[in-house]
Amino acid sequence: MIDKKSYVGQLISLKIPTIEFSEAFAPSNIALCKYWGKRNLDLNIPSTPSLSISLGNRGTKVQLSIAPQNSLSINGKCIAQESPVFKRTFDFIELLVPKNIKLSVQSENNIPTAAGLASSASFFAALTISLDKLCSWKVSLQTLSCLARLGSGSACRSLHHGFVKWLSCDDPFQSYGIPMDVQWEELRIGLLIFDDKEKLMPSRQAMLHTQNTSSLYQSWCENSNSDFEIFHNAIEKKNFQALGETAEYNALSLHAVMLSARPAIIYSQPETLKAIIKIHVLRQNGIQVYFTQDAGPNLKLIFLENDLECILEDFPRMEVINPFSRVDNLST
Amino acid sequence: MIDKKSYVGQLISLKIPTIEFSEAFAPSNIALCKYWGKRNLDLNIPSTPSLSISLGNRGTKVQLSIAPQNSLSINGKCIAQESPVFKRTFDFIELLVPKNIKLSVQSENNIPTAAGLASSASFFAALTISLDKLCSWKVSLQTLSCLARLGSGSACRSLHHGFVKWLSCDDPFQSYGIPMDVQWEELRIGLLIFDDKEKLMPSRQAMLHTQNTSSLYQSWCENSNSDFEIFHNAIEKKNFQALGETAEYNALSLHAVMLSARPAIIYSQPETLKAIIKIHVLRQNGIQVYFTQDAGPNLKLIFLENDLECILEDFPRMEVINPFSRVDNLST
Repeated sequence: MIDKKSYVGQLISLKIPTIEFSEAFAPSNIALCKYWGKRNLDLNIPSTPSLSISLGNRGTKVQLSIAPQNSLSINGKCIAQESPVFKRTFDFIELLVPKNIKLSVQSENNIPTAAGLASSASFFAALTISLDKLCSWKVSLQTLSCLARLGSGSACRSLHHGFVKWLSCDDPFQSYGIPMDVQWEELRIGLLIFDDKEKLMPSRQAMLHTQNTSSLYQSWCENSNSDFEIFHNAIEKKNFQALGETAEYNALSLHAVMLSARPAIIYSQPETLKAIIKIHVLRQNGIQVYFTQDAGPNLKLIFLENDLECILEDFPRMEVINPFSRVDNLST
Repeated sequence: MIDKKSYVGQLISLKIPTIEFSEAFAPSNIALCKYWGKRNLDLNIPSTPSLSISLGNRGTKVQLSIAPQNSLSINGKCIAQESPVFKRTFDFIELLVPKNIKLSVQSENNIPTAAGLASSASFFAALTISLDKLCSWKVSLQTLSCLARLGSGSACRSLHHGFVKWLSCDDPFQSYGIPMDVQWEELRIGLLIFDDKEKLMPSRQAMLHTQNTSSLYQSWCENSNSDFEIFHNAIEKKNFQALGETAEYNALSLHAVMLSARPAIIYSQPETLKAIIKIHVLRQNGIQVYFTQDAGPNLKLIFLENDLECILEDFPRMEVINPFSRVDNLST
């Protein structure tokens, strides 16, 4: 298998920045069909196909400027050189710019960091677009998606708005975010934040632990392929029930596989379970609301605009996102 | 495959009761290696081998007396003829006694009914022993275990005290509880009862639903076989850490598979998750305490006598059971 450096070399040629400053935004994305586990650890090629919805204008803005030395700030807070986030960021940057170039990276999220809300996805996507502006690679979104993937797998989906597919394939040049040409104006995502602290175990580590120790992991992968097909059809036909049900099943199956890892990974908290019970009661009462859950205790509700008021009665602190509200293009 | 009636016919010959009254006790049992799913629905032959610990003098006492008509009371409460429990009880009895014999069945549990505490296991085991006394079949415990299994699969393990194995095999005459010749005086079981109401979904139905809809079920079965071996060795060597860890893993994997059923089966309640988090904190502090969970929200803690005081500080309402305290023989 090709190594990371040669892979990057086939996608872009390293260039000295042509400008002093650049900035870019990329949306957070929430996987409906989950990405969990890799067939290639080095190049972040996933074991299974996944499918996400981008969160419109909720995500990360990255500003880059040429500087005497590397620095990173996240939401105004300076990150120490020794921190894993700093190292991960500049390991990625050093793949893409000549080594003598030093950068100041300033990142601003308008969504909680590391609370299972895919902030590393929007960060690496925005960082990649920003680097493209700085260095004038003038490459396609497809190429940028391949590059962003090296920073964080799911970042490759944050290069686009709306529904985005990411296929699992052996060829690393074919593994990028593919936007679906579907606008679903009525669709809403509700964020239930129970805890915005850092996760107990970061996703990359949790994925690997699941893959290595859960006896149910292989079956989960097989099932992901069939869920992916169901999602694809549900979105093309705007079949909301199929979309919602499959999203909830797929998320629960992911947490099932983590529960069967040894030792178990349990991201849910008592609040999570309370909210799940409430959602099921709402559904019994005829309100079509479903949830998905990522590597954290928070839930993301999926529903249509006309049920919003009813759902807010039960979850008054829910933050409502319209993924298809007017948003700027992400092109470079 | 042989049908239920012919199966019973090969185990006993139906007899008119020789006495007017009989009574018997059988202990509840808690599966460490779980039974979930059947390879033969009619004869309750399990898909996987299981292994349990009987709860000493905690279980069910059944009193039988010849009567003008069938009646059933549980903990002093008369059960209506239309109730599924009544039907299930007398369908079982009619397999074992001539049809013209009518019985009054009085059952007393000293453990909460239908709260995932295997009360149907101890009930059908005690009922079978009691029927044997009433009708003087004079058969072995092995035969009684095969008969009790027809009432409730896990009842076949309640025919014995201590650790009991139940193998999964094609031959229905080889599927019975096998006691292990191990006394483990220091072992304790702690009951954490969060809810003693009837289960949302009875185990038999939940098993079938899991088996029919979870894409992870087959892998779970394969894994059960290896867990069974680990339990067997851990018990023979009195390796408490291996016993506890495997019990917790095995239970979490079972709940994982239920979580991946479609729709998901979630027996945990917020209280369950709170207790699990507490148990994990206790373990981080060096207290060797593990849990198992069945088809309900309650937890059963597994620990050794010398950690009892420490654990009671965190769980003051826990009921402590010594499975190897002096108990009467269950022979007929």
